[in-house]
Formats: sequence, C-alpha cells, structure tokens
Amino acid sequence: MTLNLPIALDAMGGDKAPEAVVHGARIALKYFPDLRYIFYGDEAAIAPLVHRHKLEDRSVIYHTDVAISSQERPSVAIRKGKASSMRLMLDAVAKGEASACVSSGNTGAFMAMAKLVLKTLPGILRPAITATIPARTRPVVLLDMGANIDCTADYLVQFALMGDAYAKAVLGIDTPTVGLLNVGEEEMKGHDELKLAHQMLRGITGSLAYHGFVEGNDILEGTTDVVVTDGFTGNVALKTAEGASRLFYGTVKQAIESSVWAKMGYLLARGAIKMALRRFDPRKHNGAILLGLNGVAIKSHGGADAKSFANAIKVAATMVQQNINQRITVELARHPISAPALPVAASV
Amino acid sequence: MTLNLPIALDAMGGDKAPEAVVHGARIALKYFPDLRYIFYGDEAAIAPLVHRHKLEDRSVIYHTDVAISSQERPSVAIRKGKASSMRLMLDAVAKGEASACVSSGNTGAFMAMAKLVLKTLPGILRPAITATIPARTRPVVLLDMGANIDCTADYLVQFALMGDAYAKAVLGIDTPTVGLLNVGEEEMKGHDELKLAHQMLRGITGSLAYHGFVEGNDILEGTTDVVVTDGFTGNVALKTAEGASRLFYGTVKQAIESSVWAKMGYLLARGAIKMALRRFDPRKHNGAILLGLNGVAIKSHGGADAKSFANAIKVAATMVQQNINQRITVELARHPISAPALPVAASV
Repeated sequence: MTLNLPIALDAMGGDKAPEAVVHGARIALKYFPDLRYIFYGDEAAIAPLVHRHKLEDRSVIYHTDVAISSQERPSVAIRKGKASSMRLMLDAVAKGEASACVSSGNTGAFMAMAKLVLKTLPGILRPAITATIPARTRPVVLLDMGANIDCTADYLVQFALMGDAYAKAVLGIDTPTVGLLNVGEEEMKGHDELKLAHQMLRGITGSLAYHGFVEGNDILEGTTDVVVTDGFTGNVALKTAEGASRLFYGTVKQAIESSVWAKMGYLLARGAIKMALRRFDPRKHNGAILLGLNGVAIKSHGGADAKSFANAIKVAATMVQQNINQRITVELARHPISAPALPVAASV
Repeated sequence: MTLNLPIALDAMGGDKAPEAVVHGARIALKYFPDLRYIFYGDEAAIAPLVHRHKLEDRSVIYHTDVAISSQERPSVAIRKGKASSMRLMLDAVAKGEASACVSSGNTGAFMAMAKLVLKTLPGILRPAITATIPARTRPVVLLDMGANIDCTADYLVQFALMGDAYAKAVLGIDTPTVGLLNVGEEEMKGHDELKLAHQMLRGITGSLAYHGFVEGNDILEGTTDVVVTDGFTGNVALKTAEGASRLFYGTVKQAIESSVWAKMGYLLARGAIKMALRRFDPRKHNGAILLGLNGVAIKSHGGADAKSFANAIKVAATMVQQNINQRITVELARHPISAPALPVAASV
C-alpha cells in the first residue's frame, strides 16, 4: 500500500528502545513500503541503527536527551517533560509535521500528554484506550482498556460509536456488532449508568448494530465484534484473560516436560499446536489506540520487541490511511449525545 | 471426619435435579461419612433415588411441588415462593433444623431469599458471594463474585476480613495474604472508594496480612490467597478467566484433531496433560458461599453434576465444622468499621 506520510516514533520509550523502535520501523515497511519516519531521541544511538536498517533515505532524527521514565507521574511528565522524546513526537503530530505517532513509553504520561497536546475530536467527551484482541473466531475490539475509571452512560455510548467506526475502518467489518459488558441478568441488575447506556444504544438505529449486554465469557468467545466497558473493568478483564492464558499454557508445558512419553508426544503434536496458537501471539496485536483524540497516537507495549513495534506502526498507518478520525467525527455528529451528563469523578 | 448434623438440600434446583442432588449427597459421604440429609422437593422422584443410593437411614424427605424457575425474578420468588423447595430449605436452617443448605437453583432468588430468611451476621453490612478458584500454585479465594454491584470502602474492608477468616478456616492457611483488585498504578488512580479501602486496610494491624493492590493477572497467578473486589468486577473477571481457559483449551484440542501426527502425539502426552489439568476441574471447585449470612447457604452451579454437587456439600459441611460464621463475627468485632458509609446504589 502506498502511504508516504511521516510517522513520528518515540525512540526513548519502552524497555527495548531504541533498537526495537528502529528495527520495528524497518519491519513495518513490509505492510506500508513507502512510510517515512521521524525518530525522537538520542541521535548518537539512533543514527547507527538507522544506517544498519537502511532507513537513511526515509528518516529524520530529532535529537533530545530527555526521556520520560516509566515511573514518572503524568502530572510531572507534563510539567517537566516539554523537551522529552514523547512530547516532541506529539507536538509533531499537532503541528502536522507527522501524520501519526507511536510510543512504547509510560502509558499514563502518554495519555495525559496526548490529551493535552492533540485535544479530543469535536464532540468527544473522553478518549478511550482501544485494543484488538484475538477471540475464538475473529479479533474483537475492546474499549476502554483503562483511560477512564468511572464512565457515564454518555461516555459508554460514545465508546460504542467509536468502536464501531474503528471496527469498520481498521478491521474492515461492514456491520460490526457491538456489546455492552455487564453481569448475568439473572443475578443482578448492573450499574444505573450501564442501564442508561443500554437504553440509549437501543435507540440508535440504522448504522449501529447494537447487540445488547454481553458477559465476561463473551469477550473471548467473540460474541460481538466490539465490547464496550469502563476503563476499570476493561483493564481487569484484559489482565485476567492474559493471566488465565499464561496459567493454562504454563500448566500444559510443565506437564509435557515432566514425562518422557509426553515429551515425545509433544514433538509430534507441536507443529499443529504452534500453528493454532500463532493467532494469539501478543506481538500480532500490539498497538492500542487512544481513540477519540484529534490525531493518531498509538501506545505500544512497554516490553515490545521489533516485530511487536512494527505492528503498532502498522496500526498507526492504517488509522491514517482509513481516515478513522474523520469517520468517528461524522458518526458522532449523526448521534449527538442528548442525555444529560452525570457528574463522575475525573480520572487520569 | 465425624459430622452428623443435617444438611438441607434443594432437590429442585439446577438442570440435573433431583438425580445429581441425591447422588451428590451419596458421594459427599466420602468426605463426611456421618452427614444426614433433608431433601426438599418432589417426594415421588426423590424417594427411589434415596433408596438407590442407600441413603434411607440418614435422610428425611420434605415434599413440595413448588420450584423456583431459573428465570424467576428475585422479588417474585420471595413473594410467591414461600412453599418452594429453596425457601423451605432456608427456613430449616433459620429454625435450626438443618446446619447448612445447598442449592443449584436460581442465584438471584437464592441470594435474596437467603438474605431475607437468614439475615446477616452481627455487624455485617453486605454478604458477598465467595468462590475458591485454582491459581498457579494454590487455590485463591475471590469475593465478591456478584452480590454487590457497587461497593463502598466499608463493604470492601469487611469482604477482606471475611475472606481472611474463610481462608484460615476452610483452606487452613495460617496467615492468608489479602489483595485489593485495582488497575495499574502507573496508568491511573482507581476509584475513590478503593483508595479509601486501601487506607483502611493498611491501618488494620496484627491479624490481617494485607498485601495491597493487585491486578487482574495476579488473580490466577496466586499473588495473594484472597482477592477482594466489588461484585461487578469480580463477576466479569471470573467469567473472562473461564472464557480464556475455554478458548485456549478449544484451540489446542482443535489443532490436535486436525493432524494425524498431532493426534498420535497427543495419545502419548495426554496422561500427563490430563493429570496436570485435573486440578482445574471446575467440579472440584463447585460451591460458592454467601458469606456474611447468619447461617450457612451454599450456591452450587446450575449445571452441577453429582460429583460437582458433592463438592458443594463438602464446602457446606466444612463451613459448619470450622465454625466459620462465629470466626467472622469475632474478627469483625475486633475491627469495627469506623469510616462513615457513603451512599451507594442498592443491589439485588
């Protein structure tokens, strides 16, 4: 695909920067051969890597020696990090010098800075961290993954519209189904805001395929293409699912290693098992979007390696190519939030 | 273990009643050989089963033909279900005719009825659904699993004390560690009530080993013996973990069946894998406790088979044998809730 717009990259963010960042930029050319890059960070460290990965003719390096550490509080990062690689990268997007940016750095700082620098899209109340995770039969879009601890019905309705637009644009699904995460009807009733959001979403006709409430087990079952929830629940659900997969995998692995017969059996079965599990490789799903911002900002995992970072760049480029923010704006303008916003404790 | 107290059983609750209930009662004698039973339900259906499973000399049958359906709303169940098997079973516990009761029936109805009939223990603000789930290295006690959608700091602190008492009494852990479920510190700050509960728990010294905040992935990692959360998050987390395990298991199974070599390999490895996964058999973990009630009421899974139901009876008998409710009362009296309770929407 031809896309020769420049992508700004934080070459100081994450455990494996700058190597994973520059190498990842190289790998991303597989998906978008004409991408250009602006690297922000330590020029002396970046330049040889850019040379090694043959990116000179498509790269610019902006030197800075200010990095936002992973422990930095968002408020401090904003106040003291004006010359940081993360901030300069966001400024480039705000000024139109870059079309999108990607960082594996401190999530809280990145979110707070991105909100301050890029602002939200017209009509958006709150941006949401949006991730794509592999479910049984297809990828599922999950939001909010942690930007907003408390969510009013209005936020949730907007998340549904944003998730819908994202699934259409990035995953190429014509009519994505959207579910609202709740607990079993037979056991209890759900938060008031959740019930209100449910009613509001039921009222949106035409463009949105609202499925209704879904439960925790529906997320990975792939019952709907999009699952909407508040940032607290989304964060816990995602981390619990990761923990469950790790536990299951670890248990089976240990069992196999404990017996000679099992080891031999595994030698025969492993090709098929590896192939089946390939789809769940977290590197293929790296790149969470701060959806709702007036600009494309992608959060890559802090431990991302080159292959993983390349995927985050791919997400960034796809967002630009598909004009996702414009689509969200159009979608939101069609469904202005009419219910009064209830007071909710601010987050981040 | 000798325990010849009578346990009341709902022989009309769940998909497999009465067969799974009576057969389960037989199996439970493996753990407590001297248990006695009071069955509530259709005598014509129960009597032959009691005969078949040789339980005549230790059983009484109370006939009723009123069952609470799984779709019944809790409020309707309370109003119209006064002669139901579920209600009569709870009445028996309240009157002291039975030491504990177990039902695989409608969760919402059971919880509402149990609260009405048994009342809460002195000082308890809200009962919590408490389950034991298998984590990497040990079982973990998780509460609340869905009784209370919204939780004040007070509720959470009481859940921590109840979970602690439960882990000591039922799991036999001398000094259980207790974690409070939250999202990554570096990303955001958590609910105000959560932060307040954290402070209150930090202030409890001596008997409680409060670990601090834990995240979703810590639940199945077994970072702490007890994980405390609100009923909404707990319900979503548990169901998400179940969904993740099912997805992983299904993917591996399908991969093995897709190739002849993999099938042969599995024949060799399957003994070791099955042995390793045995610990995660949900039937071994059936039986959620409505903790905080003035009486022992155990909720068994709606789809429980005989083996599964036997485990729920085992949990009930252990609760009685270990005097768990008295221990909770003592524990709570030592740590009276001092912070003012904030207004929270009622649930159930």
